[in-house]
Amino acid sequence: MEYKFLTDTDIQFFRNLIGTENVLISDFEIYASDATEKLEFFPDIVLKPHTSEEISEIVKYCHKELLPITPRGAGTGLAGGALPVKGGVLLSVERMHKILDIDTKNFQVTVEAGVINFNLQQALFQHNLFFPPDPSSWQSSLIGGNIATNAGGPKAVKYGVTSNYVLNLEVVLPNGEIIWTGANTLKNSTGLNLTQLFVGSEGTLGIITKAVLKVMPQPKFDVSMLVPFRNLYEACDAVSEIMYAGLNPAALEFMEKNAIQITTEYLEQNSFLEGLNKDLFENNEAHLLIMFDGNSFESIMNEAQKTAEVLGKFDIGEILFADAELEKERIWKIRRRVAEIVKMNGYTIEEDTVVPRANLAKLVEGMHKLANENDYKVVCYGHAGDGNLHVRINHPIHKNSYNNPEIQIILKKLFEEVKKLGGTISGEHGIGLIQKSYLPIVFSQANLDLQKSIKQSIDPKNIMNPGKVWI
Amino acid sequence: MEYKFLTDTDIQFFRNLIGTENVLISDFEIYASDATEKLEFFPDIVLKPHTSEEISEIVKYCHKELLPITPRGAGTGLAGGALPVKGGVLLSVERMHKILDIDTKNFQVTVEAGVINFNLQQALFQHNLFFPPDPSSWQSSLIGGNIATNAGGPKAVKYGVTSNYVLNLEVVLPNGEIIWTGANTLKNSTGLNLTQLFVGSEGTLGIITKAVLKVMPQPKFDVSMLVPFRNLYEACDAVSEIMYAGLNPAALEFMEKNAIQITTEYLEQNSFLEGLNKDLFENNEAHLLIMFDGNSFESIMNEAQKTAEVLGKFDIGEILFADAELEKERIWKIRRRVAEIVKMNGYTIEEDTVVPRANLAKLVEGMHKLANENDYKVVCYGHAGDGNLHVRINHPIHKNSYNNPEIQIILKKLFEEVKKLGGTISGEHGIGLIQKSYLPIVFSQANLDLQKSIKQSIDPKNIMNPGKVWI
Repeated sequence: MEYKFLTDTDIQFFRNLIGTENVLISDFEIYASDATEKLEFFPDIVLKPHTSEEISEIVKYCHKELLPITPRGAGTGLAGGALPVKGGVLLSVERMHKILDIDTKNFQVTVEAGVINFNLQQALFQHNLFFPPDPSSWQSSLIGGNIATNAGGPKAVKYGVTSNYVLNLEVVLPNGEIIWTGANTLKNSTGLNLTQLFVGSEGTLGIITKAVLKVMPQPKFDVSMLVPFRNLYEACDAVSEIMYAGLNPAALEFMEKNAIQITTEYLEQNSFLEGLNKDLFENNEAHLLIMFDGNSFESIMNEAQKTAEVLGKFDIGEILFADAELEKERIWKIRRRVAEIVKMNGYTIEEDTVVPRANLAKLVEGMHKLANENDYKVVCYGHAGDGNLHVRINHPIHKNSYNNPEIQIILKKLFEEVKKLGGTISGEHGIGLIQKSYLPIVFSQANLDLQKSIKQSIDPKNIMNPGKVWI
Repeated sequence: MEYKFLTDTDIQFFRNLIGTENVLISDFEIYASDATEKLEFFPDIVLKPHTSEEISEIVKYCHKELLPITPRGAGTGLAGGALPVKGGVLLSVERMHKILDIDTKNFQVTVEAGVINFNLQQALFQHNLFFPPDPSSWQSSLIGGNIATNAGGPKAVKYGVTSNYVLNLEVVLPNGEIIWTGANTLKNSTGLNLTQLFVGSEGTLGIITKAVLKVMPQPKFDVSMLVPFRNLYEACDAVSEIMYAGLNPAALEFMEKNAIQITTEYLEQNSFLEGLNKDLFENNEAHLLIMFDGNSFESIMNEAQKTAEVLGKFDIGEILFADAELEKERIWKIRRRVAEIVKMNGYTIEEDTVVPRANLAKLVEGMHKLANENDYKVVCYGHAGDGNLHVRINHPIHKNSYNNPEIQIILKKLFEEVKKLGGTISGEHGIGLIQKSYLPIVFSQANLDLQKSIKQSIDPKNIMNPGKVWI
């Protein structure tokens, strides 16, 4: 598809439509990159509409004029989904940040796409409610982006991912039509599940403008346990044992030795860990961070106790139980900030592998073998309860995987290993730009053809986030 | 689309492919109807393949020859989805009843589409696992059909519906290609969510042949409470109060007076309720049937106790607590058999309305008002915790809604009321044949066009379950 170059007439149209102050034609460095590797792609124009109707008019115009559109949330994505690789229009939903309704009787909220996850949490907290999806980026990422990537987070092991909380979406289609995808109901067998088709579609099928989300009563209590393991693979195997014992952790996170080391060193230097017993991090190959939550303090302490019993058969160090706020905050800070801190330490390339939980040990083993064979450093951490392991690569030369044949060979091997273990490429980040060349490893040609034919039927002119997911 | 008439050559092709004994060309009355109203549509031929490859060959042939295919599970559907309205091929998956794998470490099972829900439950029980979706038809319905309709059941209020348990599907597409839709992982942000597109697609996009399902550890204990209400609308309002108190029932079912009366009368005559105190059913306008489950008996008794406290503000009769097996079986039999028994009593037309839970009282009120105004009898019961209310109609003259202008006028008003309350047409039965004319009440033209364009892109010749969902 040949896109049109942006003209002065186009700029004037957009200025008239949404106001000159909401149209940027220069100084948009911050819109040229996101949290993915070290990549930069410049749009031709940045638009910041503040209603669905404005977005509809923008899209109708782009549809007619053949201008590519890249929708963008907070730019916290890790797969390059919000990068305007074809130039054209960068459409930011940042000004659509209204929480439209909190329905405490039905446990539903209606939000605009630009609401920050954290702000939604704060508003819900007033009503003793919460929105379970809690990606690491939750303090800045937007709900629209969370939905577009089907974001997860530590609590997914008990509560599920974003898709489990999306009841209904308002979407601007590539032809500019505004639709609601479903109904504001907990159950729905009425027609095709368009709602779930748009969840995780990474802006390739339309622009999510509003969402009706299911929320939950905030559990009254939680307790966390940090468990040091002498043996890396025992830490992985313990994950399955905990689940098989019928325990229901609200989080079950894994961090291997170097992830902990790099992160705690940084946090210590910045005085974030004062009062924490440093012996916890010595002579251990991995840690599990486990949380239980619920409305009965006794019940969750019981679950924690049973977990400790299950873990007794493994070679573990002293378990740190944390039920006081400060203590919990300290140990969770390590997990929450690991990605950012290891990235600062040169681990710029991040993969988002996911396998059936019991294959976690094999996956970690495979990742290390591959790193040794190819002379790079690797650090693994992630949502072990879901089998979702983030693998960060520190390559002595290359800092990007995108368009880099040497790294692509490595990643191809990595994903082939993932596929062999019954897994897939992305658990919660999406495919976006940087993972798209690996899709044939996990999908048959017939599957990919089907995905593309759906994309083609919804966006025949390929104006919506072009250059993403499929090649 | 003009379909071809079945010829002797076609019959011979199918006989050669799957064996003469698996091809019926007469005596297929049982394949001409399902559990929907009183409808009959005859296919031209019934095929019972027993592998995905056989199905692939059948579909390739039908695709080439332009023969319509209606996929069928156990025929327990309530929307006519399995009725061969265009004649042609009725494809039954009944011979594909193998449980291929029970993975106790990852809580996953792989099954063929023809496995009976009950048989899966029995097999899982040996491993202390269970598959939460439990539609009323669970003793005979097939997993393939459960997936195709996104079936629910009483436990959906705590555990979610079928879609929440489908990780990956093997599907034969309308061109005969066999694909797996996703991966066997708990999280997945890799490409479009084809898995959830096929869940609830009612055989219109392809034939589900295998499924990888998520299962759960079987909770050790459960307790049920039957709560009589003097006031119908208080019973509805109590549902929201229970949820807002942070209680987490595994089932929260509603039955109004006449549902209970008709059902208990029948069950008593057949000696199913011996030993149950009949006073429970006197002078009450509705009942809630509430279940709690978990691994701590103390915890669930605590939840039941708190529920009783919440209910104290309503005008209720004596609560029957049931924790003994026989007692639980007796009170659940009333709920499990209500649909079948009221149907025998002339309530042949069933609707599957769903609204935001807090609007339940208004919905019940609206249904009764409509019945009074239009001189028919109505009985309401259902999954109140999800806002999913089954409305059965006993019309003095008409026993079907299909192609009946008089009933269609009534149902149009009913669904307009549902839409006004924020709800939709079907919570767990699907649209199939009998609900399709009402879709414009809940979907905009742009939404319907989108659904149809997806159908068109996957099945351009419209051979897959034609005449269903869309007109």
